[in-house]
Amino acid sequence: MPVRDRLPAGRTHVPSAGGSRPPGGPSDRHHEILDAALELFATVGYGGTTMAQIGDRLGIRGPSLYKHIASKQELLVEIVTGMMTELLRRQQAALARGGDVSERLQRITAVHVQYHAEQRYEAFVGHREIDSLEEPHRTHILDLRREYESRFRELVQEGRELDVFRTASDRWSSYAILDMGIGVSAWYNPSGSVSPEQLADTYAELALRMLGAERDSANTREG
Amino acid sequence: MPVRDRLPAGRTHVPSAGGSRPPGGPSDRHHEILDAALELFATVGYGGTTMAQIGDRLGIRGPSLYKHIASKQELLVEIVTGMMTELLRRQQAALARGGDVSERLQRITAVHVQYHAEQRYEAFVGHREIDSLEEPHRTHILDLRREYESRFRELVQEGRELDVFRTASDRWSSYAILDMGIGVSAWYNPSGSVSPEQLADTYAELALRMLGAERDSANTREG
Repeated sequence: MPVRDRLPAGRTHVPSAGGSRPPGGPSDRHHEILDAALELFATVGYGGTTMAQIGDRLGIRGPSLYKHIASKQELLVEIVTGMMTELLRRQQAALARGGDVSERLQRITAVHVQYHAEQRYEAFVGHREIDSLEEPHRTHILDLRREYESRFRELVQEGRELDVFRTASDRWSSYAILDMGIGVSAWYNPSGSVSPEQLADTYAELALRMLGAERDSANTREG
Repeated sequence: MPVRDRLPAGRTHVPSAGGSRPPGGPSDRHHEILDAALELFATVGYGGTTMAQIGDRLGIRGPSLYKHIASKQELLVEIVTGMMTELLRRQQAALARGGDVSERLQRITAVHVQYHAEQRYEAFVGHREIDSLEEPHRTHILDLRREYESRFRELVQEGRELDVFRTASDRWSSYAILDMGIGVSAWYNPSGSVSPEQLADTYAELALRMLGAERDSANTREG
């Protein structure tokens, strides 16, 4: 809910979907197209965007555009797949660092929030436009999402069984943590004074508190 | 994030935007159109919906449709305004009941969550399509949203100043509470065994915990 009006302004991060590329090649053009599509999908929605509008952004006319990209759907698939791949990669890295259940929960919450602050356009489109994906892509992405969210639920359950966490429902608690992080992509202001890391740390403390397993620093006032 | 695939299925609630109407009059037609638009906006997005598709749903052809409704934009304005009006109404009623700061925070969180479980289509479209509103409607809705969310922030601040709550940031804590409630509209399953009231109560407890002001029942397991 908070301050969605900020979203289209002040974009500062390149899409995660782009990855690393050599400069000057045809993949540069692909990346520019992806970038233009991402901004249009974020501001007017996937359904409200046409291939012609994407081309107009870059001064490319129809036939030339289709040399680089087959369809609007292909662009959406690349954006959403890029988001889920990156979220899962960060989550796996966070879990690989080990630690007790509170540390692991804190860490996967922090990387979740940090991603949604850093890559807010990708996240905004990636979550909002799931239903615009055609099959088999939609099913594939929903599978990745279930895998991603199950890590949260499993950790909540593990902590509850160890009497480290107290929850009325492992599922609702993990959904609450996921959703408060997703919300960040709609209101986070990258031009503000707060870094994605600071926000991530504070939110991770809020998550632990919600699970009845507070650690230490959450009552240091920061903003 | 959780289980967005459930959204388009199993719709059980009529739009809040409709209000109460006498049966059989022209306003019945208006309500049917609003209902068809809501479902299309939720499933294919505002930008992906055409007036012809709305008419097709009801077997109404172009000119007849325009006797009841001026434009797609008018339908969106009615849906989003309906959502914000109802959210503010419930919030004001919750605050009017008084009580200490924890009770009031718990109560406005509960009505927030309950709305998002009960009216999940309206909420889903109402939050997602803010940027599809044309002026002056967009500015008006953003003003209502700011008013709505400021009630959360003011209560968090009040509780912190009374040493009832502990927060690193009143703003982030209130955003976290708002966003976890908004997320409910994407995953809540009205055909499941959990009522909107039960979910609302549990989430309200999670919110209090997050603020360092736990009450009592949050570790009763429910689902």
